[in-house]
Amino acid sequence: MESRTEQVMQAIRRKLGSGAIAPGEKLPSIRGFATTMRVSPSTVVEAYDRLAAEGVIFARRRSGFYAAQSNRPVALSAMGPRLEREIDPLWVSRQSLDADEEAPKPGCGWLPAGWMPVASLRRAIRAAGRADDGLLSYYGGTRSEGKLRQFLSRQLSDQGIEAGPGRILLTSSGSNAIDLVCRLLLSPGDKVLVDDPCYFNFQALFRAHRVEIVGVPYTPQGPDIERLQEALSLHKPRLYITNSALHNPTGATISAQVAHKVLTLAAVHDLIVIEDDIFTEFEPDLSPRLAAMDGLDRVIRIGSFSKTLSASVRCGYVAARPDWIEALIDLQVATNFGGPSPLAAEILHHALSDGGYRKHMEALRVRLAKLRWKVAVQLGEIGIAPWIMPRGGFYLWCQLPEGTDGAAMARAALAENVVLAPGNVFSPSQGMMSYMRFNVGQMGDPGIYPALDRAMRAAG
Amino acid sequence: MESRTEQVMQAIRRKLGSGAIAPGEKLPSIRGFATTMRVSPSTVVEAYDRLAAEGVIFARRRSGFYAAQSNRPVALSAMGPRLEREIDPLWVSRQSLDADEEAPKPGCGWLPAGWMPVASLRRAIRAAGRADDGLLSYYGGTRSEGKLRQFLSRQLSDQGIEAGPGRILLTSSGSNAIDLVCRLLLSPGDKVLVDDPCYFNFQALFRAHRVEIVGVPYTPQGPDIERLQEALSLHKPRLYITNSALHNPTGATISAQVAHKVLTLAAVHDLIVIEDDIFTEFEPDLSPRLAAMDGLDRVIRIGSFSKTLSASVRCGYVAARPDWIEALIDLQVATNFGGPSPLAAEILHHALSDGGYRKHMEALRVRLAKLRWKVAVQLGEIGIAPWIMPRGGFYLWCQLPEGTDGAAMARAALAENVVLAPGNVFSPSQGMMSYMRFNVGQMGDPGIYPALDRAMRAAG
Repeated sequence: MESRTEQVMQAIRRKLGSGAIAPGEKLPSIRGFATTMRVSPSTVVEAYDRLAAEGVIFARRRSGFYAAQSNRPVALSAMGPRLEREIDPLWVSRQSLDADEEAPKPGCGWLPAGWMPVASLRRAIRAAGRADDGLLSYYGGTRSEGKLRQFLSRQLSDQGIEAGPGRILLTSSGSNAIDLVCRLLLSPGDKVLVDDPCYFNFQALFRAHRVEIVGVPYTPQGPDIERLQEALSLHKPRLYITNSALHNPTGATISAQVAHKVLTLAAVHDLIVIEDDIFTEFEPDLSPRLAAMDGLDRVIRIGSFSKTLSASVRCGYVAARPDWIEALIDLQVATNFGGPSPLAAEILHHALSDGGYRKHMEALRVRLAKLRWKVAVQLGEIGIAPWIMPRGGFYLWCQLPEGTDGAAMARAALAENVVLAPGNVFSPSQGMMSYMRFNVGQMGDPGIYPALDRAMRAAG
Repeated sequence: MESRTEQVMQAIRRKLGSGAIAPGEKLPSIRGFATTMRVSPSTVVEAYDRLAAEGVIFARRRSGFYAAQSNRPVALSAMGPRLEREIDPLWVSRQSLDADEEAPKPGCGWLPAGWMPVASLRRAIRAAGRADDGLLSYYGGTRSEGKLRQFLSRQLSDQGIEAGPGRILLTSSGSNAIDLVCRLLLSPGDKVLVDDPCYFNFQALFRAHRVEIVGVPYTPQGPDIERLQEALSLHKPRLYITNSALHNPTGATISAQVAHKVLTLAAVHDLIVIEDDIFTEFEPDLSPRLAAMDGLDRVIRIGSFSKTLSASVRCGYVAARPDWIEALIDLQVATNFGGPSPLAAEILHHALSDGGYRKHMEALRVRLAKLRWKVAVQLGEIGIAPWIMPRGGFYLWCQLPEGTDGAAMARAALAENVVLAPGNVFSPSQGMMSYMRFNVGQMGDPGIYPALDRAMRAAG
């Protein structure tokens, strides 16, 4: 645990990082900030002294402490609109990543460790420990390990996407794959389309690219085509990012009709589409894919293994036009001196090829199907209703009782050490105040429902 | 091995990627390109047909093939000055990464696998296979694994750099660490200083950030202070990146006096310094460090484990001001959803703590010290002379016989499957035509010296 002094230091650093305290500006008074932080004045003195020793702030005799002037970078958190911290995408990501393992996290985006195919993974790690010296020592080729790419090529083919290993590039993570694609295709000031709601980290990622985000309402059949058409005409965006199957956060799946219309519009408006497809293996059966319909021409497919196999063995991939893959390799060499860890690719390939892994996924799909209904019923008892019942996966996108402010509810829940994901975190238009995303795999603790109920009441 | 058809496809993709063939422009004729590539016309027809099927090019009846129009991204290789491919930094990186394991690679930047502490690594991998389910399954906290950061904190302290674990951030690689720092601190159009010569991938990395590169001549005691001062006054660069100890490619080490002057100038001109310090463990004893003199105020320290332990278990780190670390975490979450693989951090920590690793490094330093002299003598016999004898490490930066064009020599050597690193790859001013960097660890094959001799003669 952090000491109180460190908590105060951290709070000041955040204010400096976000620009809430500008360079040269005076810091809160010691007494005032002690009251705010509910610590003793001597704790604040200690914290300010240590920050001064770090050069982050400096003392002026008989006047107080001031933020240092020099070399302040533009912090990412200062780039977007100023949001309450509970609905700042970065804040939610950091909260769920850093919450202690025991804290209930209905707002987080992954399954409990005990639900992951850890036995297959351990076998794969042991096998990798016997790999040859070269695999264990070298950077690996610029296209990274062939076995995993061939495996992915076959898997994509089963989904109707013909991509030889030369059209696939392994990356450090799924997010890293999207980031590389954005670096290739976007320039600051470009416009990009996202679903409203969408996976919150897309907004953080685009903010890092200094591009303008335009939201398109999402329906149970995919993006609202009329609104998509309007946005295309009005904003002339360069690209659109979406999840076609088991959309995050709604759990919806695009229909074949909507998928066809999206691609027709994309062709007319010369739009590039990133299909972030990390929930494929949670589907009961294969649904329409933009990448399959389009043949990986203007659609770029992103994947990762973090949801199904391990988020600790980091690796993702891009499947795209070969000329784009070539350009992405150059970017990957420049920014990472090559691809992801060859050791990680070896471990993943071994685990994915393991018979135990396939059985595990079958059982997990069955388990989650039951659980989605069970959690939906339990949420219903406290007045929270799913927007739709998804075909698969572990998310339920829910409507809160009318007028409930999800951000206020998340704040109240956090006071009880429960991490939630309120609707507006996912909403570029901030129009999802009374929605909440729940992870059914993280709701086994029976104390969660009463805690949710209390948090709702506290949020009025 | 690639088929001939694939080689032709690849060649065309490069031309498209680099902009050598612009969108809509006609491709080389089938007969002409067959002659250029030394393949049969039917191979070119096959390649063009396959590229057309991919949508990269298209056929016009009775006219030939044309580059497709739509959505062409700006390839990284088209951003910088157009260089001969042998001295294009990206090309050299990709050549050495992709060369087959058996090919002699005096130009590459790593030691043979047999020289790495693979036994310690295997033990560490086996131990990691027994880690708890959470470590094997989860993303890990935003500051990544505490044990490795604490280890690094102690190691930095031994080097006179006081950095608590809160001032250290683990990253996907050393290059990724530099890239994140650049994303935080640079905007397109900014100016940055590099040493001339410098590690070639710095140039590729900065190109990806669309900033202007200014070179400062490097002397055996560090950067040329007068020229540094001139560059600071003239260009007002935002940052300077350098290696203080065992500088790449020269092997030189900065003197205390030059280090002090660099920091004094940095303070006057409000310059941020990135000290990329990946060769520390190859030093016989500790030399001056900008990060230590400066106390990590305006100096940012970068490190990695790729040269000493494994380039396959990818991980790097940044040590910097705590407010910058906070801002870097936000960027890392946005672009990679968290830090490097917790599994990788666990493996590295275990291997670094292994007694076998320390003994291995001691023996390796002794081995390399002898080898630097041996290789210097052998190079001397064919007229190639080290610029200085480095205190440690595995590079020898050498002067070729007067008038020898290093790029031409590298081209001739490549025809014999020997990968070299000609001087101008490292030189932003392109003033190092008659220099060459040799990796003494990659020169065990006695056939290399005659091959070098032939390549030099061929280069005239």
